[in-house]
Amino acid sequence: MSSSPILDRRNLDFLLYDVLQVEELLRYPRFAEHSRETFDAVIDSAHRVALETFLPHYRTSDLHEPELVDGRAVLIPEIKAALDAYVEAGFMATTADAHYGGLQLPFTLENACATCFGSANLPSLAYPALAKGVANLLEAHGSGDQKRRFVAPIWEGRWLGTMCLSEPQAGSSLADISTRATPDGQGGYRIEGAKMWISAGDHELRENIVHLVLARLPDAPAGVKGISLFVVPKYRVDADGRIGERNDVRLAGLNHKMGYRGSVNCFLKFGEAGGCIGELVGAPHQGLAQMFHMMNEERIGVGLGAIMLGNAGYLYSLQYARERRQGRHPDNRDAASKPVPIIEHADVRRMLLAQRSYVEGAMALALYASRLIDAEHNDADAAVRQESHALLELLTPIVKAWSSDWCLKANELAIQVLGGYGYTREYPVEQHYRDNRLNAIHEGTNGIQALDLLGRKAMLQDGAALRILMRRIEADCAAAAERPALADYAQSLRRACALAGEATGAVGRALASGQVRLGLANATHYMTLLGHTVVAWMWLKQALVADARLPAAAGEEAGFLRGKLQTCRYFFRQELPVVEHSARLLTELDDSTLVMEPEWF
Amino acid sequence: MSSSPILDRRNLDFLLYDVLQVEELLRYPRFAEHSRETFDAVIDSAHRVALETFLPHYRTSDLHEPELVDGRAVLIPEIKAALDAYVEAGFMATTADAHYGGLQLPFTLENACATCFGSANLPSLAYPALAKGVANLLEAHGSGDQKRRFVAPIWEGRWLGTMCLSEPQAGSSLADISTRATPDGQGGYRIEGAKMWISAGDHELRENIVHLVLARLPDAPAGVKGISLFVVPKYRVDADGRIGERNDVRLAGLNHKMGYRGSVNCFLKFGEAGGCIGELVGAPHQGLAQMFHMMNEERIGVGLGAIMLGNAGYLYSLQYARERRQGRHPDNRDAASKPVPIIEHADVRRMLLAQRSYVEGAMALALYASRLIDAEHNDADAAVRQESHALLELLTPIVKAWSSDWCLKANELAIQVLGGYGYTREYPVEQHYRDNRLNAIHEGTNGIQALDLLGRKAMLQDGAALRILMRRIEADCAAAAERPALADYAQSLRRACALAGEATGAVGRALASGQVRLGLANATHYMTLLGHTVVAWMWLKQALVADARLPAAAGEEAGFLRGKLQTCRYFFRQELPVVEHSARLLTELDDSTLVMEPEWF
Repeated sequence: MSSSPILDRRNLDFLLYDVLQVEELLRYPRFAEHSRETFDAVIDSAHRVALETFLPHYRTSDLHEPELVDGRAVLIPEIKAALDAYVEAGFMATTADAHYGGLQLPFTLENACATCFGSANLPSLAYPALAKGVANLLEAHGSGDQKRRFVAPIWEGRWLGTMCLSEPQAGSSLADISTRATPDGQGGYRIEGAKMWISAGDHELRENIVHLVLARLPDAPAGVKGISLFVVPKYRVDADGRIGERNDVRLAGLNHKMGYRGSVNCFLKFGEAGGCIGELVGAPHQGLAQMFHMMNEERIGVGLGAIMLGNAGYLYSLQYARERRQGRHPDNRDAASKPVPIIEHADVRRMLLAQRSYVEGAMALALYASRLIDAEHNDADAAVRQESHALLELLTPIVKAWSSDWCLKANELAIQVLGGYGYTREYPVEQHYRDNRLNAIHEGTNGIQALDLLGRKAMLQDGAALRILMRRIEADCAAAAERPALADYAQSLRRACALAGEATGAVGRALASGQVRLGLANATHYMTLLGHTVVAWMWLKQALVADARLPAAAGEEAGFLRGKLQTCRYFFRQELPVVEHSARLLTELDDSTLVMEPEWF
Repeated sequence: MSSSPILDRRNLDFLLYDVLQVEELLRYPRFAEHSRETFDAVIDSAHRVALETFLPHYRTSDLHEPELVDGRAVLIPEIKAALDAYVEAGFMATTADAHYGGLQLPFTLENACATCFGSANLPSLAYPALAKGVANLLEAHGSGDQKRRFVAPIWEGRWLGTMCLSEPQAGSSLADISTRATPDGQGGYRIEGAKMWISAGDHELRENIVHLVLARLPDAPAGVKGISLFVVPKYRVDADGRIGERNDVRLAGLNHKMGYRGSVNCFLKFGEAGGCIGELVGAPHQGLAQMFHMMNEERIGVGLGAIMLGNAGYLYSLQYARERRQGRHPDNRDAASKPVPIIEHADVRRMLLAQRSYVEGAMALALYASRLIDAEHNDADAAVRQESHALLELLTPIVKAWSSDWCLKANELAIQVLGGYGYTREYPVEQHYRDNRLNAIHEGTNGIQALDLLGRKAMLQDGAALRILMRRIEADCAAAAERPALADYAQSLRRACALAGEATGAVGRALASGQVRLGLANATHYMTLLGHTVVAWMWLKQALVADARLPAAAGEEAGFLRGKLQTCRYFFRQELPVVEHSARLLTELDDSTLVMEPEWF
């Protein structure tokens, strides 16, 4: 299938095959049954199912958000129909083991397919996406019995799942979780507490919902070291995996959101009547580490979701700008001449180029990160697995936060391209923005991602992950330096890396000397610095391929490659230079925000 | 009255009296009846009326947007009640001549009062604000008869009005307006055409609606030189000003918007049945110049509206950040310690400081521009009037576009401060964003404002207005250079001015050599460059006052002054430096966007 309002297929193929060379994944035994043809076919299928069943109810689910009726969340029926089609076409178990009936596709392909579903209707994709996270977590940390009883039904598309972390008094602060788990004397645990912001927390899309709940055992230490993980199904599940009576999990309220309305968001109460039974996953007090298995995956997912919405807005506003005629070039004084398509105006091109540079740059990065997951899980070489893991840890907060900041900016620009029309609800771009506004908030706010990036990931093992990153970037810079059209970019990117190195060093010294608050005060600027640097790297990677192929290309393909080169140029010229400013604030340990006293506001 | 969720009274007083010294306006004969006491009383009254009648239906009017019933736009009754209170308290005629029953207050005070109403409920303020624009235009360009029949009822609060420029095929491109006006042989004109995006275009809030309509006479030349202005009342008005039969103006549709829903936005058809009668305002073919009288006023109004919404979001998120406890300082490892108010976190302070620096910086600028209007209209010295006019012309697109870009950013940050709660419709900050998203679009998109600023205003009379601006900025830099605490800012601001001068020169040379498209390609960066520069200047002005007063201040007042100094520092350190990048793109005539071909997308 060719391109559509939700997918630029040439771009996706370019990223997968030409830039990331995903065909190399076929050498891993897990993917031995696959080929370029099966990859293409699954993307075709995702594209078709997304267009046919996800896209048509995108606005509908915004207009008719879930309602609380008799203690149940009632959704529009189109969501279930879309999920049925998704399961039917095999997308629930794309990455699952063959013994579960899975396709054993690489995560990179799973996420390539997700770009179709998410660009069509991200809120509806949230249901299966969350369930997959639950399955992957239990696959990694659950007992054999739990895998059989809880994981298999998810891969089979019969059950869904959630992650229950936040509580009303402790949104992002997991140290303050107060939900309790008490042994019930029969091997299970009685769960008591309230959980807030639970996506897909209640619905009747499938037979059961597998909640993963963070709670404290009676003897738990304070803070994050005392959190354990429990599997708490909506309907109890017997030893044979059969569904039994209702568990004591009550839907206490629905959140009414700015956007993302098709995805029901719940306030849940566990064990109000003392009848909520859960099972411990793995060992006690390991809940946070276990949950991070899922959270890291969801953070890539949140970043990817932001990219999909950015992509949908970009493609829509591009089409509009080609068709809408208005105004004339500033050097044309002939009022009787025909108005030009607005894509002719430099400022409209700027807004389209900005969107494209954010969306396709971040998409390359998210797929790059997905490929690291595949390498981490499958490579025969332990050193490759380790390096992939370290780099993935470093890139995860960037994929989450940079994408959700800048692809949100893309959505804002898409509205602007459409002008007054973009501000009306007759066009989808305002919904893209509203839906995307969540992604900078959930799964850890972008402020928390920045602290994670600077305070933890960049400092781990004396900066080992950052060194891996810099080595990989330098390899591409060296290649680019050899090509006359790209040599300037190599120089700019090397400069950005040097700035990132200096800034990291300055902060590292501050942290080592005990100036923790000062060192971390500008963490958000570090996210910009490193985020812009890696996205520039992704653009350089694309430019390397485009520049090499351009001489032999003609027609549409030549236009596509020139577009890649020009978008790379745009990003390096108009976006990347902000790293100078971010780096300076970090390196100088600017304290403008830190010293502002609350009473001075 | 002291501060509230819609007004930081100390800040408003500081800007009006301490920074802008509006008491100096009392020397103008027009304001001779006034005093600091009457100024204070009118602000008190605005604050009270806004809190009592505008704020309570802010969310209500978002939930229940206007409906088209039997050809009429039906609004919630709270809007009329608020307008009644507004008129009753004298706010319709704050600036009007005494012979109309007006208070003859300075525009600066009118706009200071508007910050209360707009921070409480901007969409409801749009009705009287537009009507005032109509009255001011007709006062300037209408005949004595038109003033008597159309202007007086507006000041008296009996009628409202609109500006009808855009048409469906020509949103921002007034050259392509096709509405026709044909002499009816009785001194009037038959109007035929369709007008899109008409705010306050239909309602029954008042007895009549005075539409100002741009249309072409039969002999009109093509383009903007052939546009004339007509006054077209919803109900015909006889020679004595009495309301007669319905004019042929049909409400053909309502626009359903992302936000700003309380303000009805209409698609109007004029003369479908051949029965729409209008009156020519002034001479034929002068419509655009006349309409710019109102458009310039509305552009200041749009900028001010953006500031008010930014202000509302800032004050709300500030209050939330003081009360909400979550997390601990990064150097505190004691999980049993009490969570801190989130205002303690450096990144939350950054988000609050950014909001404050945009909102209070832009508010200072908008009030500065308002004061220029007062000087332009009232100063005895022709040179002062001329200089005020030139500077106002230059600053108008900045007030409109910079404020609506950056106070929108402020609203985005307010949502982020509230986290998940900010994303729900239970809190007002998501509505602030949605409402504010319009301000970068209407009254000329910000892209058009940037072209106006760079291509016209900065170049007029060989840069005369820019020289006036630079001279005034330099006077404050010279004063700041004498104060140890401010000397660095003086240096930074001088550097920004030098960059703006270089960039203007480079673009001017390009335009002079015929490279018009290239010269204007980076107009949006010029808006950032000059906008950040003048807002930095506004912060320096505030810092000059604060630094001088701090030694004698104590308690709350000292905290307030320190807050001003620290916000100034924040803006100079963390925001202003982006001008380096903007200036480089302009000075180098960067063509990254211009050379991107449509088929490369």
